[in-house]
Amino acid sequence: MIHGKNFIGYELKAEGLNSFQTFSPANLQELPELFVQATKQETDLAVNKAVNAYKVFRKKSGKEKAAFLRAIAEEIELLGPLLIERACAESGLPEGRITGERGRTVGQLRLFASVLEDGSWVESSIDPAMPERKPVARPDIRKMVQPIGPVVVFTASNFPLAFSTAGGDTTSALAAGNPVIVKVHPYHAGTNELVAGAIIRAAQKTDMPDGVFSSLNDIDLSVGQLLVLHPEVKSVAFTGSFSGGKSLYKLAQKREEPIPVFAEMGSVNPVMLLPEKLKEDPAKLAATIAGSLNLGAGQFCTNPGVLIVLRSPEAEAFKTELSVQIRKLLPEPMLHRNISSSFVRITKDLLEDPVIEKLAESDLKAGELRGRPLVVKVSGNDFIAKPGLAEEIFGPFSLLIEAEGVEELTEVLKTFRGQLTASVIGTSDDLTTFRSQIEILQQVVGRLIFNGVPTGVEVCYSMQHGGPFPATTDTRFTSVGVDAIKRFVRPVAFQDAPNAYLPDELKDANPLNIWRRIDGQLTKEPIKT
Amino acid sequence: MIHGKNFIGYELKAEGLNSFQTFSPANLQELPELFVQATKQETDLAVNKAVNAYKVFRKKSGKEKAAFLRAIAEEIELLGPLLIERACAESGLPEGRITGERGRTVGQLRLFASVLEDGSWVESSIDPAMPERKPVARPDIRKMVQPIGPVVVFTASNFPLAFSTAGGDTTSALAAGNPVIVKVHPYHAGTNELVAGAIIRAAQKTDMPDGVFSSLNDIDLSVGQLLVLHPEVKSVAFTGSFSGGKSLYKLAQKREEPIPVFAEMGSVNPVMLLPEKLKEDPAKLAATIAGSLNLGAGQFCTNPGVLIVLRSPEAEAFKTELSVQIRKLLPEPMLHRNISSSFVRITKDLLEDPVIEKLAESDLKAGELRGRPLVVKVSGNDFIAKPGLAEEIFGPFSLLIEAEGVEELTEVLKTFRGQLTASVIGTSDDLTTFRSQIEILQQVVGRLIFNGVPTGVEVCYSMQHGGPFPATTDTRFTSVGVDAIKRFVRPVAFQDAPNAYLPDELKDANPLNIWRRIDGQLTKEPIKT
Repeated sequence: MIHGKNFIGYELKAEGLNSFQTFSPANLQELPELFVQATKQETDLAVNKAVNAYKVFRKKSGKEKAAFLRAIAEEIELLGPLLIERACAESGLPEGRITGERGRTVGQLRLFASVLEDGSWVESSIDPAMPERKPVARPDIRKMVQPIGPVVVFTASNFPLAFSTAGGDTTSALAAGNPVIVKVHPYHAGTNELVAGAIIRAAQKTDMPDGVFSSLNDIDLSVGQLLVLHPEVKSVAFTGSFSGGKSLYKLAQKREEPIPVFAEMGSVNPVMLLPEKLKEDPAKLAATIAGSLNLGAGQFCTNPGVLIVLRSPEAEAFKTELSVQIRKLLPEPMLHRNISSSFVRITKDLLEDPVIEKLAESDLKAGELRGRPLVVKVSGNDFIAKPGLAEEIFGPFSLLIEAEGVEELTEVLKTFRGQLTASVIGTSDDLTTFRSQIEILQQVVGRLIFNGVPTGVEVCYSMQHGGPFPATTDTRFTSVGVDAIKRFVRPVAFQDAPNAYLPDELKDANPLNIWRRIDGQLTKEPIKT
Repeated sequence: MIHGKNFIGYELKAEGLNSFQTFSPANLQELPELFVQATKQETDLAVNKAVNAYKVFRKKSGKEKAAFLRAIAEEIELLGPLLIERACAESGLPEGRITGERGRTVGQLRLFASVLEDGSWVESSIDPAMPERKPVARPDIRKMVQPIGPVVVFTASNFPLAFSTAGGDTTSALAAGNPVIVKVHPYHAGTNELVAGAIIRAAQKTDMPDGVFSSLNDIDLSVGQLLVLHPEVKSVAFTGSFSGGKSLYKLAQKREEPIPVFAEMGSVNPVMLLPEKLKEDPAKLAATIAGSLNLGAGQFCTNPGVLIVLRSPEAEAFKTELSVQIRKLLPEPMLHRNISSSFVRITKDLLEDPVIEKLAESDLKAGELRGRPLVVKVSGNDFIAKPGLAEEIFGPFSLLIEAEGVEELTEVLKTFRGQLTASVIGTSDDLTTFRSQIEILQQVVGRLIFNGVPTGVEVCYSMQHGGPFPATTDTRFTSVGVDAIKRFVRPVAFQDAPNAYLPDELKDANPLNIWRRIDGQLTKEPIKT
């Protein structure tokens, strides 16, 4: 069933000498199939095919690209239980989670299809000529965004479907009109192969050019590096660790031509629990936090890695309730033995720090590869002296910071660097009292959550999944939601162009009936000539 | 009149030991005033003041920021002839040009003010909650852009007003809600001082915080370097040479936290002259091209530095007419003796290249510092072998490439890297015949011009003044026009936030009556609750 080859556009190739197997966290052994790492030649061929495909693909209409995305969704669904089983086997994630992730993946593809069918996303803007203007006539200027060229997508370890082969990066890059080359994550190369096959079938069925999609196996990162450095690659998307994202970003700086590297590198997603709210129902709050912390064995970039409270009787009560909840949590299998051993090592080291106190750990013995939920405590003062304690620990873990008074709380908040999210748990009185503290958090996050946990990232128009460095390398963009498409386009203006040359989106008659900005005003009206 | 000090917010400081004078290209001597380079301490103080000012300034309403920008425009106008005289003295540019540039500068300030008053620019987007959604409820997600923090603006040598102290970069950064620190160009430090004073007066009159604007003199680039490396600086805007822009971009890569460096580094702006059009009125065409080439002594980033024709009798006729026009051109004063000597040296070297043939040069002897208009010729074949010939030569210069047939023309076009603009001069038949060649140009430019010259950049909603590298370091943004504001913001999403916390732009009632995207649809309607 699984062939282990690379998809170089419509060709399957496996001429390399390096091969690898994927690992099953559930039964603790290697899966049988061999995946062959792409060679330099295969990598170059994939890029060259993408360059050629781009010439055709960039001219496909919104409706044509939408049909392609809808066909991908359909082909993924047609894979049925085969895909679910493989993704579960390669990730250790439960079937319910993987089924949900498949739903998210095909939902995302169809959402982008609807955006393309609507057509208004291209930021069409028109300033008609003013031939009579003094002292000089104004030319006719029309602008819209266009695709940029081949995009490289690094698939994520923790989302084998929704942030991987046909995930948000691939979908938004294709929607924008760019060919995509996927650098396969070695943890779930089989899942990738199934989805890549679905994309290729969809491309062929909807008459997309050979090279619009390629998928390259990579065990030692060398393929990823070749791709980032390839002069014809125009953008890179990555979801993963800080060290991984930063090293790709640094690598791209060696290029002669700078290109954007969108690395989403996770964060600790501070959750500030305010005093009045803590009094209301500490048990329920503790259960919610504990559930968020252990979701997917804590392997989310939005895991609540830091909890912040003011020292008080209600904080004591909450800590007690939280300990009860944490002790009851069932250790879940982690994605890979490397991840689980790294979690064990890092938390062990942390507990040796004299400023750190263990608050609670799951009472249930973690089986091999299972992440044992853990919450540790530090005083506000000690944290301020050591803000590096807020570095992300990938797994079911939170650091609870207990601040002595509002001033110390404020100083704690000021230490935070860029985060994907921050949450504020408070009554409406709390929100008024602590407004200036909340505003400190707002300055460092992409998403500010009120009375909710950070896990769960809605795929919609208004989502911002991003944030200042080091959460991402480019705070101006989101990697989830419709606006993720903005990463992979650039504006181009046409001056005094005849209608015959202009794309439909900019023609006088507005044949696509899209929203356009005309002389600065939004309208669907045609241009009168 | 001119004090030569640095504006550190509302304070004037000049504690440094390095000082410099500006130079008058018109009478070939130094102007008398001494400008004192900012010290490291003064530089740090300016950034610290900007950080503090940001806390207040970012909360100013659109109307308040608009009043500030309008006050700047008014204060600039109140400077009257003093500003015009100083800018002419320091740039060698004629009074008409400087008066026009002042008009462009204040017009730009007022355009951004009107955008802020309208308020719809913030990309407000709302996906209301769906508490009944299965399998999980959808939270309420609302997003808009917010400012990013202190922006450093490097002023440009060739536009002492419109791309300098209160130019497009400063205006768009302030409009977005960011404090600005100007790194002064040493060629027109006196002009800068007058305009910086106007900005400071406007800030005080409209109750803006101390530190919202600073201006630092710099002769040896050390102040600029300190600013780019300062951890609290969040963005850099630069207009100038490729080497200058690239070196700032490289410098920023040494930072721990990556920040965007928007360097607009100019280009050769190829002009493709198509055969049918060449037949129509070669004399008029030649006059238009010659005029564009010598405008402002060719010191525009949109100077037509490359002309492309197909070898043919009509191209011969055009070359003859162009030679006639070039020979008649009056050499204009260049901005500085460094620029003029560099122009003389580079063109002299170029003429020694055996593949280069002089087509025409102005018959009028260039006085000292005046740029003598020059057009040289190269065959398509020689150019393809040496595409480096298309590097920008700052001054009244064009390289005419003569291609032998359509295939060679196509190969010539394929050599071009990123450009701010390309122009196509053709009849409607030409545009049909050469459509695929025009599309090659479209892929490498920010603006594609039909039957017009590249000089003259309209300040409007639809302008794209940018382009793929090496024209700029970030092709996704424009440095001219309303959308220049997008460089200096980042989106932030609010999840389940109470209306009391939300900015007006995201409140249910839509109190600012702005366009918002609700569930993906543009509307000014309030949210029904």
